[in-house]
Amino acid sequence: MSTRTLAELAALVGGGVSGDGQLAIGGVAPLETAGPGQLSFFANRKYRAAFEASRAGAVVVEQDEEVPAGRTVLRAPGAYLAFARISALFNPPAPVEPGVSPQAAVHPSASVDPSAQVGPFVSVGPGAVVGPRTVLHAGVQLGAGVRVGADCLLYQNVVVRERCVLGDRVALQPGCVIGSDGFGYALDLAGDGGGPRHFKVPQAGHVVIEDDVEIGANSCVDRATLGTTRVCRGAKIDNLVQVAHNVVVGPLSILASQVGISGSTTLGMGVVCWGQAGLVGHITVGDRANVAAQAGVAHDVGPGERVAGSPAKSDVAWARNSAAFDRLTDMRRELRALQKQVAALLQERKP
Amino acid sequence: MSTRTLAELAALVGGGVSGDGQLAIGGVAPLETAGPGQLSFFANRKYRAAFEASRAGAVVVEQDEEVPAGRTVLRAPGAYLAFARISALFNPPAPVEPGVSPQAAVHPSASVDPSAQVGPFVSVGPGAVVGPRTVLHAGVQLGAGVRVGADCLLYQNVVVRERCVLGDRVALQPGCVIGSDGFGYALDLAGDGGGPRHFKVPQAGHVVIEDDVEIGANSCVDRATLGTTRVCRGAKIDNLVQVAHNVVVGPLSILASQVGISGSTTLGMGVVCWGQAGLVGHITVGDRANVAAQAGVAHDVGPGERVAGSPAKSDVAWARNSAAFDRLTDMRRELRALQKQVAALLQERKP
Amino acid sequence: MSTRTLAELAALVGGGVSGDGQLAIGGVAPLETAGPGQLSFFANRKYRAAFEASRAGAVVVEQDEEVPAGRTVLRAPGAYLAFARISALFNPPAPVEPGVSPQAAVHPSASVDPSAQVGPFVSVGPGAVVGPRTVLHAGVQLGAGVRVGADCLLYQNVVVRERCVLGDRVALQPGCVIGSDGFGYALDLAGDGGGPRHFKVPQAGHVVIEDDVEIGANSCVDRATLGTTRVCRGAKIDNLVQVAHNVVVGPLSILASQVGISGSTTLGMGVVCWGQAGLVGHITVGDRANVAAQAGVAHDVGPGERVAGSPAKSDVAWARNSAAFDRLTDMRRELRALQKQVAALLQERKP
Repeated sequence: MSTRTLAELAALVGGGVSGDGQLAIGGVAPLETAGPGQLSFFANRKYRAAFEASRAGAVVVEQDEEVPAGRTVLRAPGAYLAFARISALFNPPAPVEPGVSPQAAVHPSASVDPSAQVGPFVSVGPGAVVGPRTVLHAGVQLGAGVRVGADCLLYQNVVVRERCVLGDRVALQPGCVIGSDGFGYALDLAGDGGGPRHFKVPQAGHVVIEDDVEIGANSCVDRATLGTTRVCRGAKIDNLVQVAHNVVVGPLSILASQVGISGSTTLGMGVVCWGQAGLVGHITVGDRANVAAQAGVAHDVGPGERVAGSPAKSDVAWARNSAAFDRLTDMRRELRALQKQVAALLQERKP
Repeated sequence: MSTRTLAELAALVGGGVSGDGQLAIGGVAPLETAGPGQLSFFANRKYRAAFEASRAGAVVVEQDEEVPAGRTVLRAPGAYLAFARISALFNPPAPVEPGVSPQAAVHPSASVDPSAQVGPFVSVGPGAVVGPRTVLHAGVQLGAGVRVGADCLLYQNVVVRERCVLGDRVALQPGCVIGSDGFGYALDLAGDGGGPRHFKVPQAGHVVIEDDVEIGANSCVDRATLGTTRVCRGAKIDNLVQVAHNVVVGPLSILASQVGISGSTTLGMGVVCWGQAGLVGHITVGDRANVAAQAGVAHDVGPGERVAGSPAKSDVAWARNSAAFDRLTDMRRELRALQKQVAALLQERKP
Repeated sequence: MSTRTLAELAALVGGGVSGDGQLAIGGVAPLETAGPGQLSFFANRKYRAAFEASRAGAVVVEQDEEVPAGRTVLRAPGAYLAFARISALFNPPAPVEPGVSPQAAVHPSASVDPSAQVGPFVSVGPGAVVGPRTVLHAGVQLGAGVRVGADCLLYQNVVVRERCVLGDRVALQPGCVIGSDGFGYALDLAGDGGGPRHFKVPQAGHVVIEDDVEIGANSCVDRATLGTTRVCRGAKIDNLVQVAHNVVVGPLSILASQVGISGSTTLGMGVVCWGQAGLVGHITVGDRANVAAQAGVAHDVGPGERVAGSPAKSDVAWARNSAAFDRLTDMRRELRALQKQVAALLQERKP
């Protein structure tokens, strides 16, 4: 795309320029590689050296950021969001190429909007519906009765099993699976005379992914045993995440990579679970709660609560106790010393 | 399907009816959404309010469950299994549609039973065999010499690499991978003159998945370095689980989501590993052992043992020590106070 | 292939024979199943009984290994590497079958070397390049502008998204995803009037996988926000691993199964992360550092450092403190006893 002046970009994001507002910007780039015609971003003080050394034409910074003399900056409140908006301007999504590949397999009873793009080796099952401007990349498999809304982006080899529903503007990264069977078995000791077995509980429900949800590569959202597993509007889920049957992931929630949510657990609005956290089943996590990385949550978490550790508890208490854990052998030694001293005192007292 | 009377359903599962046995039941549904013609299920006391408020025509409960006056229930010993059986009656598997899609790629030397269903974009490699009534959904890839038994259900985009063997009634959820290379390298400092490298140890073995096994979405079972990685009959594995080379997962074992089993480890019969547990390689876990969620198992586990924590130990000891951990800063404070008191006592004694 | 004498094999790996050097060896096999014409391997003392009972014609052992009388062995320095080399001789990779399947979808503007093998249901996007002798198994999807070097092996259903680059001799196990979007959002409270939302930060960078890298089944390497996510030459990554945007995995590093590396973290050369370890973003891990299984790394790790625990610290300190943790309830009891004794002493002193 053509260039924009730095002043134009600043106006777009409600920011201001220190330096040459007429500078022509042709794109965004990291501090290390940006050139004079590019815009970069600085916020994390770990990268101050890179910021100071950068050859970027200009850099987006927070309103009150300290900057070296002579450095042209675009100051904006919420610098990260401002930078994201500008980056989106220079990196628009690939245009949709309407049409169905001759190497796709669209069932005659399915309905694909003429403005949608269907790549090779995509199957669209009986009765499935694909909305306007939605893109199904190569190898996407949609089961019978699946409904996909408008402006969705399903990357390569995504699977959506039968009867699951995707809203509008849903993005699924490659290999993501929606609607796999939930993990439910009833122990059957007699097993029709064949001895013990795990009797499969039918997973007869489905999954609803609401508007503006994004789910990462090779993540899995299981269908409900009965009813609906639901990822609510605007939630964002990273790669390799497990969302079990009958879970509800609340609106605007964030699940980082490798998080696991067990069956029938309900997350409120704006919940954040950091990497590799695990939640047991049948619990409730309140709005805006924060679950630390690798935490193991075994009980309900209240709104706004911050938990850490396994089993998880208040993150402040956990941090303190963790620090104490790091001196546990010292404590043990001190305890031993005290025992000797007290024993001596008791000894002396005896007679 | 047609309806059944509640009395018929009770007879099917060896239960009894309290209330109107002639009630016509047309399906099963969750407590929250079930209507007068539907059967629901109640066991977890967390859901008592939903049970009491439910509009379900009848509810399956345990023999001794307390129920509100006027509520029609089907009492059964092993209520969960009873409910699962009834749900299976109302939710039978989709019928097999025999035939090979014209958009599949079946090698001329492969053998596909005429009663099997082979979807589009399925490849069946040279010499592979697909048994009666087995369903290969769209995008399944079977390598050379793979053998799949009868009545198997391979969901979309499953991969089974060369020479792996699946028994009868095996179900693989979407994206599941069987027979990927094990992770084995020998450090080669000289590297044929090119400097250090990791020399790949050939992964020349295969995988055997026995009868009645189910494996979850995007789970991986690596082929053996030499010999066989084996998942024994009736074992059930959830999503995103890693089973490394030369592992044996014993019959009827259960691996919950995101569990990882390292190379050459052997699990006995009926072992249960809860979510995100990890086991090191070359250990043995005895029959009916139970590994807690997020446990890190570094040593053999005896039959029937229950372990938790990382490194894992007896779950009872772990729970006690975890509770003590939560008061660790208190302990530290108490220790400091004692030190002062003892120092004072020692001080007084001195002269 | 034909057989080799044990003496020939020993010469190949710089080892020596104790026993009959003229023994004809036709292959390698595990201790348990090897027959008189096969070579096996023994190093882990856990398997000594199997070694002693083995019917293998010969066994590769370390130079100084104690062996039963009459047992024919091939002694080699670095026995594991020696065995791997011999196994590679008997288990060569499947020969490449040049040509493009008529059921593949190669864009007219893509370039596939005539010596490459392209299976059914493989898509090769616009402008993509596939190098000599590279194998793309069934269901591999390469996006626009992808470059794959020579002698690569991409197993079934691998996805490489647009503009990502693979060097030579790269192996990707089934379901592996390269170039999925990084997980980056800026909180947008106003949301263009629609209320709060997570504004997607464009993930406009790409991924470079250097020569001799291998990545496991269903692992994910996210594309950079801007610039490059890089897996350097000779690194080996196991199944279900997450490598986030802008990460650098150093040369010869090893990431075991289910490891997660958060955004912008840099690993040096020869770093080893064991199973299920997690690293936060924006940190540096020095050359040859070692991260224990399930560790949670929250800070920089120095070259050669060994860390364990969550939050991770020196593995020696962690092991000591973990051992103390296992006696924490005892410590608590001892502390209580001391408190009583000291209280008594103080009491006596009072008057």
